[in-house]
Amino acid sequence: MLGLMQDWPLLIHRVIDHAAVQHGNRLVISRSVEGPIHTITYAEARGRALRLAKRLDREGIRLGDRVATLAWNTWRHFEAWYGITGIGAVYHTVNPRLFDDQIVYILNHAEDRLLLLDLTFVPLVEKLQSRLPGIERFIVLTDAAHMPDTTLRNAMSYEEWLGEADEDFAWRQFDENTAAGLCYTSGTTGEPKGVLYSHRSNLLLSLAVNNPDFLGLSCRDVAMPVVPLFHANGWSFAFSAPLAGASLVLPGAKLDGASVHELLETYRVTITAGVPTVWFGLLQHLEKSGGRLSTLQRVVIGGSAAPRAMTAAFEERYGVTVNHAWGMTEMSPLGSFCSIKPDYGALDREALLDLKMKQGHPPFGVEFRLTNDAGQDLPWDGSTVGRLKVRGPAIAKSYFRRDDEILDEHGFFDTGDVVTIDPHGMMHITDRTKDIIKSGGEWISSIELENLAVGHPDIAEAAVIGVQHPKWDERPLLIIVPKEGRTPKREDVLAFMEDRIARWWLPEDVVFVNAIPHTATGKIQKTALREMFREYRLPGA
Amino acid sequence: MLGLMQDWPLLIHRVIDHAAVQHGNRLVISRSVEGPIHTITYAEARGRALRLAKRLDREGIRLGDRVATLAWNTWRHFEAWYGITGIGAVYHTVNPRLFDDQIVYILNHAEDRLLLLDLTFVPLVEKLQSRLPGIERFIVLTDAAHMPDTTLRNAMSYEEWLGEADEDFAWRQFDENTAAGLCYTSGTTGEPKGVLYSHRSNLLLSLAVNNPDFLGLSCRDVAMPVVPLFHANGWSFAFSAPLAGASLVLPGAKLDGASVHELLETYRVTITAGVPTVWFGLLQHLEKSGGRLSTLQRVVIGGSAAPRAMTAAFEERYGVTVNHAWGMTEMSPLGSFCSIKPDYGALDREALLDLKMKQGHPPFGVEFRLTNDAGQDLPWDGSTVGRLKVRGPAIAKSYFRRDDEILDEHGFFDTGDVVTIDPHGMMHITDRTKDIIKSGGEWISSIELENLAVGHPDIAEAAVIGVQHPKWDERPLLIIVPKEGRTPKREDVLAFMEDRIARWWLPEDVVFVNAIPHTATGKIQKTALREMFREYRLPGA
Repeated sequence: MLGLMQDWPLLIHRVIDHAAVQHGNRLVISRSVEGPIHTITYAEARGRALRLAKRLDREGIRLGDRVATLAWNTWRHFEAWYGITGIGAVYHTVNPRLFDDQIVYILNHAEDRLLLLDLTFVPLVEKLQSRLPGIERFIVLTDAAHMPDTTLRNAMSYEEWLGEADEDFAWRQFDENTAAGLCYTSGTTGEPKGVLYSHRSNLLLSLAVNNPDFLGLSCRDVAMPVVPLFHANGWSFAFSAPLAGASLVLPGAKLDGASVHELLETYRVTITAGVPTVWFGLLQHLEKSGGRLSTLQRVVIGGSAAPRAMTAAFEERYGVTVNHAWGMTEMSPLGSFCSIKPDYGALDREALLDLKMKQGHPPFGVEFRLTNDAGQDLPWDGSTVGRLKVRGPAIAKSYFRRDDEILDEHGFFDTGDVVTIDPHGMMHITDRTKDIIKSGGEWISSIELENLAVGHPDIAEAAVIGVQHPKWDERPLLIIVPKEGRTPKREDVLAFMEDRIARWWLPEDVVFVNAIPHTATGKIQKTALREMFREYRLPGA
Repeated sequence: MLGLMQDWPLLIHRVIDHAAVQHGNRLVISRSVEGPIHTITYAEARGRALRLAKRLDREGIRLGDRVATLAWNTWRHFEAWYGITGIGAVYHTVNPRLFDDQIVYILNHAEDRLLLLDLTFVPLVEKLQSRLPGIERFIVLTDAAHMPDTTLRNAMSYEEWLGEADEDFAWRQFDENTAAGLCYTSGTTGEPKGVLYSHRSNLLLSLAVNNPDFLGLSCRDVAMPVVPLFHANGWSFAFSAPLAGASLVLPGAKLDGASVHELLETYRVTITAGVPTVWFGLLQHLEKSGGRLSTLQRVVIGGSAAPRAMTAAFEERYGVTVNHAWGMTEMSPLGSFCSIKPDYGALDREALLDLKMKQGHPPFGVEFRLTNDAGQDLPWDGSTVGRLKVRGPAIAKSYFRRDDEILDEHGFFDTGDVVTIDPHGMMHITDRTKDIIKSGGEWISSIELENLAVGHPDIAEAAVIGVQHPKWDERPLLIIVPKEGRTPKREDVLAFMEDRIARWWLPEDVVFVNAIPHTATGKIQKTALREMFREYRLPGA
């Protein structure tokens, strides 16, 4: 027997409709790629999204067609997600920081019909367009006045193109499981893999993360996602902010400390989110300039682990609460959020900072499993390390146009992270499955060793990889980039680490390099390091 | 093209699973009907719900079967909702305050197979059981020690009955649109009508109301729903609290001011919710006893309009934020919540209290329409009155086993409320459609006149109904219950009102009575008043 409730599919257009009706005056403030600050209301954004939907329809874009974007966070990119999904087409965000070959692969694999791109990326795409035969038209996200001379196929400025339609359009209706968004993971190995979000998954995740223990956006918040919309579904801000009626501040292409700080202060931002690199820049700028954070209440840090000193600086020097967050492109993306549960009682400064280093607990709709390599459940005791597997309505069940089986027999997706979970459900990532060092049947966390090593005053960056060892199978090798002008000694570094870890975790050797290779998203490229040290032999091995 | 997200239907068992895993130590504290305080964790509640599911299954209860409850807010009633829905059966809450005939009608119309009832209601049900042939077994929500001698059919104490099963049970799987709950509206006219909630509607509503601008429950909250679970789906607390990991305090049968206050203080409640009658009792108790509210942060007032003086007392004397909420059984039930949007800027005390008298704005998933009698849209200007219509995934599309058409051509349900909506989307109820007085083609709000009249120092209660008038069609008649020992004069009352309303709103006449009739849920029974004054003729008419 079914309930007798109304049929009201979870379609994305309902978010911008709600924002326009209930929070119609709330602003979307952007630093435009052209330079000036641009302001629009949610009511106006809805109008422009309707216009875009109508224009796309006239262009012949149909249910399920992919429309790519190569763009910074601005109002045009924001409204485009609603215009595209409003006719059942799929927004496909492309990360411009990827290598050329990856961008070409992704656009061809997705079979995008249109590409909306910022002025910034016109030279890049001109160079690549001969390898992108499927794209029928390139739309430059600017107006006629700023439209460059370009060789791009059927190019047109967005504003002129949009101007060919009006707002008199009704959102299309379809099943809530219809595809809505596409984002490729930029794995360090193999081809990028596409994650295909649905209308339902985006809305369920956005509803869940607006619980006060997670993003918790309110209509009194001014939210600035510094994290780009092209990074892991934009951490859901494009949906969760208008759903709550929170104002949006979109930083465009300028993500340096001074530019971010200017927006935070000028527009009275209350909550912001981004990767540690951005916050390094902001904190450095504040230190130099003596600036304050006078309205900011919360900073959400994700993408990679937030250093303890960064959390301490925000909380203690600037009075801003830090929430570590963790997610994956495959999880739409939020998987967990480090807000403090009452179970911990009163915590002193050090214990609180320790807890804040964890990746946190999942919102409703994300289930955790902790298993060993054989798929057996492990205890949630805060010390047993295992594989983290996840299940939920906004988590991938397969990749776009691939037939890899990615769920286990219980329907859980293996995150590839090696973690502990404590008795209160707080998860802490200790490594990636492929980076963990297996020494004598035990696991050594490369990340913990790296974090420890960078605490040494002469070390700028550190990476740890496993290298073959005849007796222990693998042993850790510590690779160090010294700080400029410093020359740390092998013995000093090891002595520094020795007291802080189990004896058998101590790196077997230390090597000094000028630079460590990084992926397009700023992570240490361990595959490249392993390649570099393929011929390396440990002393005595 | 569909998205590639996991299939994870929105089933109610996922809420208690999430609470048990992520907030397993959080407490459900109840004042038992037997007397003592009882405490259980969410992890334990889940275990008992699984046991109940298994026991119901053994009893032969199947998908879609109805299991009635006649019970106060305690852990047993709470866990029963999860046990019942965990096998796809339907919890059917019956309001014990209804008249006997209504209770009999409802239980027979729903074809309940079991009735779980509190000790309190054993005498009532013994009296009614001969008229309830469909109920196979009566389960008394107590243990063996407290089980009374009873004539109830196949009666058994809940704890003994539950003890016949263990926790080794897997929740049943089914479509998320499966019926989960049934609650009859106790309208003032006609037979009660059943609203049939689904698993999906309960979960979507609970996710939406946990946005910070609405209930906004957090795992750091201790929530006490004084509103009974049998009142309009328990205002969703049974789902929204465990979903957020908030502790629950359940007040059992004792809803007087002193008992409520004792629980608020002893268990450090942070948020509570109930009807104005309960808060009258609490405020009177506080005034007499000199008590404080030392942990309470928020009180949610719904069911009927909160008097301005009540809101002022909570906010100014006790430092507790008041949120007016509005909903209907047909809306699962939350329709709107009065939290202050930033659009209003800084407000002085009076303006803030004025705003807090409004019923507020809807969460995501509730759409408003304001129309005239002809179904044409009216402006949202804060002064135009019209019918409020609503649409959303947790709103009824029809009643159980009735074929009334209750949605308009756009799929909206007519709430029967006459309201204004201001430009910021804030809704204010001015009357019920059937109580509004239509005078010379214009509408006069009976509620506004009543609220105004009770501001007179000699008036205890006031009701306004429309009576026939040869020229104006209808004119307002003011019916007054004077305060004990007071004898207000007709002319004084009218003079008191005259300056505060439009001239043509002034009641045509005033009558004094000893008491005004009320419905089982405490509302003024205007049908009875209209019947009482059917023969009444206005002076000069």
